[in-house]
Amino acid sequence: MAIEFAGVYPANPTPTTDDGRVNEAALRAVLEDNIRHGVHGFWIAGSTGEGPILDDEQRAVAARVAAETCKGRAKVIMHVGAMSTASAVKGAKAALAAGCDAVCCLPPLFFPSTERGRIDHYRAVADAAGDLPFFVYNLPQLTQVETVPAMMEKFQRAIPTLVGLKHSAPNFADIRVFADMGLQVFSGWGQLPLPALTMGAVGSIDAPLSLAPWHYVALYDAWKRGDMARAQALQDEVRPFVDLVWMYGAPAHVCKVVLSARLGMDCGRPIPPVNRLNDEEQRDVLRVAEALGVTRTHY
Amino acid sequence: MAIEFAGVYPANPTPTTDDGRVNEAALRAVLEDNIRHGVHGFWIAGSTGEGPILDDEQRAVAARVAAETCKGRAKVIMHVGAMSTASAVKGAKAALAAGCDAVCCLPPLFFPSTERGRIDHYRAVADAAGDLPFFVYNLPQLTQVETVPAMMEKFQRAIPTLVGLKHSAPNFADIRVFADMGLQVFSGWGQLPLPALTMGAVGSIDAPLSLAPWHYVALYDAWKRGDMARAQALQDEVRPFVDLVWMYGAPAHVCKVVLSARLGMDCGRPIPPVNRLNDEEQRDVLRVAEALGVTRTHY
Amino acid sequence: MAIEFAGVYPANPTPTTDDGRVNEAALRAVLEDNIRHGVHGFWIAGSTGEGPILDDEQRAVAARVAAETCKGRAKVIMHVGAMSTASAVKGAKAALAAGCDAVCCLPPLFFPSTERGRIDHYRAVADAAGDLPFFVYNLPQLTQVETVPAMMEKFQRAIPTLVGLKHSAPNFADIRVFADMGLQVFSGWGQLPLPALTMGAVGSIDAPLSLAPWHYVALYDAWKRGDMARAQALQDEVRPFVDLVWMYGAPAHVCKVVLSARLGMDCGRPIPPVNRLNDEEQRDVLRVAEALGVTRTHY
Amino acid sequence: MAIEFAGVYPANPTPTTDDGRVNEAALRAVLEDNIRHGVHGFWIAGSTGEGPILDDEQRAVAARVAAETCKGRAKVIMHVGAMSTASAVKGAKAALAAGCDAVCCLPPLFFPSTERGRIDHYRAVADAAGDLPFFVYNLPQLTQVETVPAMMEKFQRAIPTLVGLKHSAPNFADIRVFADMGLQVFSGWGQLPLPALTMGAVGSIDAPLSLAPWHYVALYDAWKRGDMARAQALQDEVRPFVDLVWMYGAPAHVCKVVLSARLGMDCGRPIPPVNRLNDEEQRDVLRVAEALGVTRTHY
Repeated sequence: MAIEFAGVYPANPTPTTDDGRVNEAALRAVLEDNIRHGVHGFWIAGSTGEGPILDDEQRAVAARVAAETCKGRAKVIMHVGAMSTASAVKGAKAALAAGCDAVCCLPPLFFPSTERGRIDHYRAVADAAGDLPFFVYNLPQLTQVETVPAMMEKFQRAIPTLVGLKHSAPNFADIRVFADMGLQVFSGWGQLPLPALTMGAVGSIDAPLSLAPWHYVALYDAWKRGDMARAQALQDEVRPFVDLVWMYGAPAHVCKVVLSARLGMDCGRPIPPVNRLNDEEQRDVLRVAEALGVTRTHY
Repeated sequence: MAIEFAGVYPANPTPTTDDGRVNEAALRAVLEDNIRHGVHGFWIAGSTGEGPILDDEQRAVAARVAAETCKGRAKVIMHVGAMSTASAVKGAKAALAAGCDAVCCLPPLFFPSTERGRIDHYRAVADAAGDLPFFVYNLPQLTQVETVPAMMEKFQRAIPTLVGLKHSAPNFADIRVFADMGLQVFSGWGQLPLPALTMGAVGSIDAPLSLAPWHYVALYDAWKRGDMARAQALQDEVRPFVDLVWMYGAPAHVCKVVLSARLGMDCGRPIPPVNRLNDEEQRDVLRVAEALGVTRTHY
Repeated sequence: MAIEFAGVYPANPTPTTDDGRVNEAALRAVLEDNIRHGVHGFWIAGSTGEGPILDDEQRAVAARVAAETCKGRAKVIMHVGAMSTASAVKGAKAALAAGCDAVCCLPPLFFPSTERGRIDHYRAVADAAGDLPFFVYNLPQLTQVETVPAMMEKFQRAIPTLVGLKHSAPNFADIRVFADMGLQVFSGWGQLPLPALTMGAVGSIDAPLSLAPWHYVALYDAWKRGDMARAQALQDEVRPFVDLVWMYGAPAHVCKVVLSARLGMDCGRPIPPVNRLNDEEQRDVLRVAEALGVTRTHY
Repeated sequence: MAIEFAGVYPANPTPTTDDGRVNEAALRAVLEDNIRHGVHGFWIAGSTGEGPILDDEQRAVAARVAAETCKGRAKVIMHVGAMSTASAVKGAKAALAAGCDAVCCLPPLFFPSTERGRIDHYRAVADAAGDLPFFVYNLPQLTQVETVPAMMEKFQRAIPTLVGLKHSAPNFADIRVFADMGLQVFSGWGQLPLPALTMGAVGSIDAPLSLAPWHYVALYDAWKRGDMARAQALQDEVRPFVDLVWMYGAPAHVCKVVLSARLGMDCGRPIPPVNRLNDEEQRDVLRVAEALGVTRTHY
């Protein structure tokens, strides 16, 4: 019986300390906050979570903390993409051992990969994750390779545990194509939660969902019960949350700054060389965040 | 009092004869067919209409025939983008003289343009069109320049008659941004009519709308009256019409072949060097088109 | 017996009047100036010559004036690339009738073309040019399609009169590949005249050659007679001429401004919407040009 | 007194065992082979050396083996670019401790970086390398960010030990610009050793140099002593070595296969997910390599 993944899945940041460890208490607090606001699952250690920058130990800690915290209350899709297949495989084993609900993975990074190379990489990771469902991470803006439907078919044939993808590619129409292929498609665009649902997505995964989970949950719930007017009204108001995340081109830091303020716990700064805000930018971010109400909880 | 542009606007092909003239009778027939199926307006001589390839006389004929045929029954937005400003200006004058409802224009083509150059080009064209409403054509895939919101603000300040745009850029979220700027936004993606409406678009403009106008009109009508279930069902079935247009990478020729079959009139072939189907490809196109029911009228 | 094309081929501007005609006297003066400085031929109505923006009549005038002026003293390669195949074909016929030495042509513009479409376009143009040698214009930065060696082989098979290309693609190593295919390769990079010769190019074609023909001719002559030290010294000093052309991103206008000053004849301004310099920018250009000595003749 | 870096610097592969360790004996053999053929230095753990895929320990071993082997006979520029600044800093410390002659580094990978972020990353790495000269690695094809001259000026101001770069960007003319800025510029294009020298480069760094060091050394020596005819003849014959490396899109594996054959030592296979050749492709590679004479030593 297949596990179902659907709904609001924040791509939460990974709180860290300045000496380079995952801040377990702060990560727990971030997840608790989002769960209490009704989210259905998490995308742990994705791009916002600085996943490809984490070392093997940091990744294993993130998987363990997420699985422990969410157990029975929210799904955990653990992202394990890394420079080397060996590192990604370690992440997959850690996710399996920790009790995560699924793993996902970027394609090979930096060096151009062949189709065969992508399949081998994904198969090694999926194998290491045992019977955990496997998600593809389709992010051509940062990987320079787009998983188009014809490529996805080959992944489906090669990887029995493949169940879905996070689709962050600009080609919005492919959501429908992937859904028609039997995949659970999460849109990676926080600006487009309602359009994504109309295209057949099961939900959205993005950073703004971690800052305004109540908003995205309300939209998703309205859609599920057929209250289109309410869903549309919430869609019409979603843009400021996304704009906030992208102020100054440092999305991970914005999330850490805002959640630090909301939770009263220091979520730290991005791991170098990930973009950081300077002090003035942090103040600007907090001013906008307060005006949007995202420095407070909404329950 | 502003004219309102909204709904289903096919980007229809421009029927031509092999000796290089616009086939006026066939163009009339295409427009009549689409009007009878309920469309709200047309995007004449756009990309599907081979507009930038037309010479000044061909463009003037297309404007005249469209205005005469549609008068009082459907709006005509005449595209006049061309290599030289002089040629685009002639097109704008022809559109005004013919009684079209609006003009639209691509930015400068081929040579990289500066912001100043784009504004000057657009202003010359808009001026030549008198008080006709002016639409920007945002098609970065073919022009290598994207009209982003900050650029659009400058166009708005420079061009008093600017009222909207056809947004064919991949950045789907910008539909909302442009709508918030007071613009009438048509989506250029025939795969995404319902998502576009949820983002604040006033409608869609694309080639598939000329082949299956009844389908897009029904979807739009369902949306307008709040029948979301029906709109969603029609959205779920829209993909084959788009796939048909893009079979073999020759969208203008597909439209001509299918409409020739439906209307019993020869719409001709694309003007060289626009991509053409060979005989076998034409047969494949017709086979798929028949299966989809688009070689027949639906009224 | 094949005509040989080799050496310094300026891509000269096309002087125009503000009412849109080619300024024949000024074009003659530009060509005379460059011939007197020793150039071996011209690339008429290329990008710097605003060729794709010219209408059929303007293009025919440019071909006629160039052929008349250069006859027996310098080769004329006439560029006829245009939006429609019909327009390019007219240009080819005009070049043949005028007595030009060769034609060259951009691939289909704006709309993505298939391989078959490119071949058909080029064949129609080459056919119209009769037995004139045919050059491909490889300019992927502006056409979005690169003529790679495998594509070129197909052109060679389809077009018996194909003898060479202007290679403006960034892939500098392909010069050697094309030369090994028996083609006469002109580099389109005015910064790289000596490197191009070491790669097997027969010469260079670019705008800076029209401003400083003496410099490029001296470099080419030094190379031909084996005076490498002199060629290298001239190569080391070539950059300012190129930087001058690209000041403010308006290369055609820079050429017109500088040559107007040198010749004492008004070469006009670029045809809209081609980028123009404002008055202050023109003054800056002239100041730099004077310091470089290109507002004076050097014979 | 500044160390001078100039000449033929192979970007050699990093031999590895299948259990993931650097094969020290094979790495020594590769370097000895190249030194015996007269190369002037090495670019250790660059792209061909799979540097960004190596873990901290692998990178430290490569630095140590290279420094020990080359001491006093060839320069060692150690590449330390990695996903996290922390990892790159460890590499820089290892290079310093091992006695390498310089370090070089890619900019931040994967996540888009700001100018400030790039400077901070480079400064941290350069600081960790103490007084070792620092080289920028300009490889926009794989990093999506190009170090243009204006950016380089900022690096120069921020990093006192910056002395040069490996320029693998397509913009070949920038070699001259960087040289004019006082930098030691190595071209990253194995196809273009002589053109690079004519542009002011101090030499070349690329994978083919590790396969045919005698060829590149002879070319460089001819150039240095002013024997242009000989340099040109060698340039004319350089292409097959580059084509060999790029057969099947797996450059690191080609280098390992060919050097394994030449040295009689197993250099292993690329580290997953770096592209690999299958058995048939390896046979093809070896057949071509033998015909080119690169499976034998040339001393």
